[in-house]
Amino acid sequence: MIKPLGDRVVIEALAKEEMTKSGIVLPDTVKEKPQEGKIVAVGTGKTLENGQKVALDVNVGDKIIFSKYAGTEVKVEGKEYLIISERDILAII
Amino acid sequence: MIKPLGDRVVIEALAKEEMTKSGIVLPDTVKEKPQEGKIVAVGTGKTLENGQKVALDVNVGDKIIFSKYAGTEVKVEGKEYLIISERDILAII
Amino acid sequence: MIKPLGDRVVIEALAKEEMTKSGIVLPDTVKEKPQEGKIVAVGTGKTLENGQKVALDVNVGDKIIFSKYAGTEVKVEGKEYLIISERDILAII
Amino acid sequence: MIKPLGDRVVIEALAKEEMTKSGIVLPDTVKEKPQEGKIVAVGTGKTLENGQKVALDVNVGDKIIFSKYAGTEVKVEGKEYLIISERDILAII
Amino acid sequence: MIKPLGDRVVIEALAKEEMTKSGIVLPDTVKEKPQEGKIVAVGTGKTLENGQKVALDVNVGDKIIFSKYAGTEVKVEGKEYLIISERDILAII
Amino acid sequence: MIKPLGDRVVIEALAKEEMTKSGIVLPDTVKEKPQEGKIVAVGTGKTLENGQKVALDVNVGDKIIFSKYAGTEVKVEGKEYLIISERDILAII
Amino acid sequence: MIKPLGDRVVIEALAKEEMTKSGIVLPDTVKEKPQEGKIVAVGTGKTLENGQKVALDVNVGDKIIFSKYAGTEVKVEGKEYLIISERDILAII
Repeated sequence: MIKPLGDRVVIEALAKEEMTKSGIVLPDTVKEKPQEGKIVAVGTGKTLENGQKVALDVNVGDKIIFSKYAGTEVKVEGKEYLIISERDILAII
Repeated sequence: MIKPLGDRVVIEALAKEEMTKSGIVLPDTVKEKPQEGKIVAVGTGKTLENGQKVALDVNVGDKIIFSKYAGTEVKVEGKEYLIISERDILAII
Repeated sequence: MIKPLGDRVVIEALAKEEMTKSGIVLPDTVKEKPQEGKIVAVGTGKTLENGQKVALDVNVGDKIIFSKYAGTEVKVEGKEYLIISERDILAII
Repeated sequence: MIKPLGDRVVIEALAKEEMTKSGIVLPDTVKEKPQEGKIVAVGTGKTLENGQKVALDVNVGDKIIFSKYAGTEVKVEGKEYLIISERDILAII
Repeated sequence: MIKPLGDRVVIEALAKEEMTKSGIVLPDTVKEKPQEGKIVAVGTGKTLENGQKVALDVNVGDKIIFSKYAGTEVKVEGKEYLIISERDILAII
Repeated sequence: MIKPLGDRVVIEALAKEEMTKSGIVLPDTVKEKPQEGKIVAVGTGKTLENGQKVALDVNVGDKIIFSKYAGTEVKVEGKEYLIISERDILAII
Repeated sequence: MIKPLGDRVVIEALAKEEMTKSGIVLPDTVKEKPQEGKIVAVGTGKTLENGQKVALDVNVGDKIIFSKYAGTEVKVEGKEYLIISERDILAII
């Protein structure tokens, strides 16, 4: 299993059925980068300057919206994930 | 429901009837980006370096002015929102 | 009423009778951006990293000098204001 | 009277008789920007992150050397002043 | 033995059998820079602003994913290593 | 006497007999900027974020090496000095 | 003797016999800048924001690897040294 460090989480991007106003389903290359994902692993938290460790505000299974272009794409055992910092998570949906 | 993280809020932009001095109502593409919105959800607050969590100074329902170009536009269940950090809120009106 | 957040204040810019050395009153477009204003509303203060809230050093009614180009111009109920951070106020006059 | 905020001071620039090595007194436009001034007003001090207010190390009447190009020029009641932050004061002379 | 300072770790990059979708094994010059490695030495930890030393969250032998282009390549006794800061480690795999 | 503020020191640059490898003494305009000086005055110290004042680690009379291009050149009573921050002093020699 | 300030150390660069794969010894101008050195003097440590002084993790005599291009080259009594900050030391070897 993949274990993110610090305040990072591992995300599985959620595919969005993308359709233009005129009703045409867009092929993959034209689609916008997804901004929604499901958390599959969370780090142990961020260490503050006083040494205290702060647990994350999100949990495994949460569906989230995150900042476009945030994070790093990785491939583990043939599957693609995105590792992002909690501060790049905008909201839980 | 959408739940913003940390010191973020979710905003519904308020349309402004925009009219030039000569009285012509401007079409959508010429209008300035709105800077006013209504808060529809607030985060649980910012974590300070001493571990303390500080609640936001704004509440759901507040009408606010925010920094032009601040935040990230998201679309949840077909509706458009703006997610911004509390520090980009200039004032409550 | 407009209520600024944090360490921000709302300012009404003060018109300055601008006159060149040769005595000609300048039209509006040639005038320098005003740097003086009157405070019409103050925020509740800045939150320090220890969680303490620090009240502002300026009050409603104070006439101030502020950094040129600081702040954001807003229009509330047809009137123009400038919202600036207290750190951009140079002095009370 | 003008009252600077925080760690700022108000300075009256000191004219320097500027003379080239060959003994020619330079006209105003060729002179270097002055770096010396006399303090005419001091702020109430800087607020540290623990909420403590630290008084300035300079007093009204001190003659100082300051960083070239530091600060903001203001005109109050027809007289020109420079408002600078204490951290841009290099030394008392 | 090589002993990294502070919050740094020494990494041995892991070779990845890289194969294109059409099944061709890529020669070394076309391969992407590896992002996976095995930790061979860890520093004694980071010193916080309160003087406390925080041990690392990774150990010798951990297989990790790290930020592409992070760290410094060094050659010790003929062998190549990468020295990176713990904050550039994304996850343990 | 000139009194530097905070963590600054006043330095008298030390002339270095500069000679090329072939033995030619270089005229002033070709010489490198000196990096050595003698401290003639020290500030009262830096104020930390907890309000504590930290005395400098150097004293009047110390011969030092400082970062090339650091500091500000000033002229007091016809004599040239350099005012630099203690953090730009590399070593005492 | 040269005494570095704060968290700095004085280093004597270690010459590396540099040889290309084809076995040719490179002349000095083609060689890479060395990244290895021996510490000849250490500073008294870094002062944290709480006023505490933290001793360095390296000692005189340690052989180290440091960041390429870090530090400042100085010449003391005809000998060349490099003065670098401890944070630019990657590892002890």
